[in-house]
Amino acid sequence: MYIVILAGGSGTRFWPLSRKSTPKQLMSVFGGKSMLQRTVERVVPLQPKRILVVTNALQAAETRSQLEYIKGVPVDVIEEPIGRNTAPAIGLAASIIARFDADGIMAVLPADHYILDEERFRDTLIRARDVAENGTLVTLGIAPTRPETGYGYIEAQENYGEAPAKVARFVEKPSLERAMEFLATGRFYWNSGMFVWGACAILDQIKLFMPELSSALAKLTFERDVWEISDLKPQIEEIYAGIKGESIDFGVMEKAEDVQVIPASFGWSDVGSWSALPEVMESDQDGHVVINAQGSVSVGSDGCLAYGGGKMVAFVGVKDLIVVDTPDAVLVCAKSAAQDVKKVVEELERRGKSEYL
Amino acid sequence: MYIVILAGGSGTRFWPLSRKSTPKQLMSVFGGKSMLQRTVERVVPLQPKRILVVTNALQAAETRSQLEYIKGVPVDVIEEPIGRNTAPAIGLAASIIARFDADGIMAVLPADHYILDEERFRDTLIRARDVAENGTLVTLGIAPTRPETGYGYIEAQENYGEAPAKVARFVEKPSLERAMEFLATGRFYWNSGMFVWGACAILDQIKLFMPELSSALAKLTFERDVWEISDLKPQIEEIYAGIKGESIDFGVMEKAEDVQVIPASFGWSDVGSWSALPEVMESDQDGHVVINAQGSVSVGSDGCLAYGGGKMVAFVGVKDLIVVDTPDAVLVCAKSAAQDVKKVVEELERRGKSEYL
Repeated sequence: MYIVILAGGSGTRFWPLSRKSTPKQLMSVFGGKSMLQRTVERVVPLQPKRILVVTNALQAAETRSQLEYIKGVPVDVIEEPIGRNTAPAIGLAASIIARFDADGIMAVLPADHYILDEERFRDTLIRARDVAENGTLVTLGIAPTRPETGYGYIEAQENYGEAPAKVARFVEKPSLERAMEFLATGRFYWNSGMFVWGACAILDQIKLFMPELSSALAKLTFERDVWEISDLKPQIEEIYAGIKGESIDFGVMEKAEDVQVIPASFGWSDVGSWSALPEVMESDQDGHVVINAQGSVSVGSDGCLAYGGGKMVAFVGVKDLIVVDTPDAVLVCAKSAAQDVKKVVEELERRGKSEYL
Repeated sequence: MYIVILAGGSGTRFWPLSRKSTPKQLMSVFGGKSMLQRTVERVVPLQPKRILVVTNALQAAETRSQLEYIKGVPVDVIEEPIGRNTAPAIGLAASIIARFDADGIMAVLPADHYILDEERFRDTLIRARDVAENGTLVTLGIAPTRPETGYGYIEAQENYGEAPAKVARFVEKPSLERAMEFLATGRFYWNSGMFVWGACAILDQIKLFMPELSSALAKLTFERDVWEISDLKPQIEEIYAGIKGESIDFGVMEKAEDVQVIPASFGWSDVGSWSALPEVMESDQDGHVVINAQGSVSVGSDGCLAYGGGKMVAFVGVKDLIVVDTPDAVLVCAKSAAQDVKKVVEELERRGKSEYL
């Protein structure tokens, strides 16, 4: 199996820790290793043939630098000159893999998701690969644990428990009422954005549903018969100049006939904002999640999240707050308003304060 | 007139900005100059004969360094080997002044109070001096603007408007109900801890009501007939080794017969905690008070106070919070819980985290 990691996101919702040059996947969101490093380490035990990390020019140097220490599996960093959503990134990786390994199976993984049970995650990928070997497109559907309105859903035709099922349709983020109906049926899963398929299988589907992208990708040729990503740079730039952005969900998955969903329950979060961290990290004895701090003191407080910038953090009489301290900016935010952190970024952009972006 | 500034406070309520070595009066609480510097600058236009700053050994170097720039009025820094509350500090200063100027009038001012109308403040001090020249002890009573329960009160025998009145009694911090009754009478003032009296007059009263302190202070002799505070250091150390701590309020003021209160209304706060700052500083257009920051962004927030550590500060969905960012510690606190900041200091002490104290 090949692993394709999509690492081009910009993630304004983790401001002030995330910036244009260090988006969420390159950040040490949980303290210690970055989300990208965790994503890569999580698949190394699968002994994949190669790991392809697709990122953009602004983040390429930091991405390479963060992955230098990975041993035992070759890691390629593929640089997109400009972000064009997931379909071109996936198509590009698939084209490279297919060129050298026509039967190659690839798992597509976002670089910035949280996974609790890594062993179970790898088992799920292996089961997905077995299904994908029949030429099917496989998507990992997360068994929902609550009527979440922040995720898209996948409806399966049948509920076969842990076994793969044919996808009936993909559904956009629902209302709470609909989300509750979804959960009641037992046939709906969260759309995790994780896929497993043959490189040729997805290229066939791109050809069918995204002919422009397919033609553009067809221009990719290898001068030498060696796997050397840096050779491709001028061609990738030319290809990207002529294509438009599109997600693989909209471009292919929602239209393709033969898509299977593998129910997955390894504990997952897309870590969409600061408020997602407390859901996936253990609280301390005071009920706070404190990351990257020299310790904390809590007086009449609970339910806070602090990213402490290496400092002592003190909470006094506060509840359900997010505090993020970085060298040049500090954020205080109600957990319930975590989605609005992107408005701060918009306001700073409007003011031309690029040093904080 | 001589000015005696009491600058020995430790102020744990302004943690993490205030520390043992830089208490509130040495801090730039409002941004810019420290409270001590503001206190000194405020009296320089009165052209006092000398300014005596009483502080303790731990803070003496910083105190001297902060006041080096003051020109035109001689400034003495008197070092107490150990804090012994206000009565010994005042007695010590009075003893020094009386030695060289038996008719000397001294104004006693805390180093860490906020005063809005400085011109009016100086006028009040001049009026107080005129009364003190008759040998009376004068206390500045702040005309209350609300039924504050955090201050002690002074009851005057009569309400003569702006004119001085004889003090009936000093009252400890009252309940809200009593504070409301106080305000209704028109004869109650906030006890500001600011006094004006003759150096000999207060020494006489100390002799009467605090004979032990009086005997100890009598040991203070000047070897040379020059005003040279550093000559006194060994004697001060000896004196302080043998006296106990006591406030001038309890030791003298509550017992003395002839005390007059001068009603004062120059806009005053003892800045007892972080939550006092918004009361005396102007809010920005978003309703926040932001000090020492590179700017701020507010999304669905109001009524916050931030001490920004020179950073960009962002508020998202929060109300009535205090945020204080320092190089090694960050505090988030509900305004209503500002008094509890001292509990953080107590907890850090219990843990032996002296680096944060």
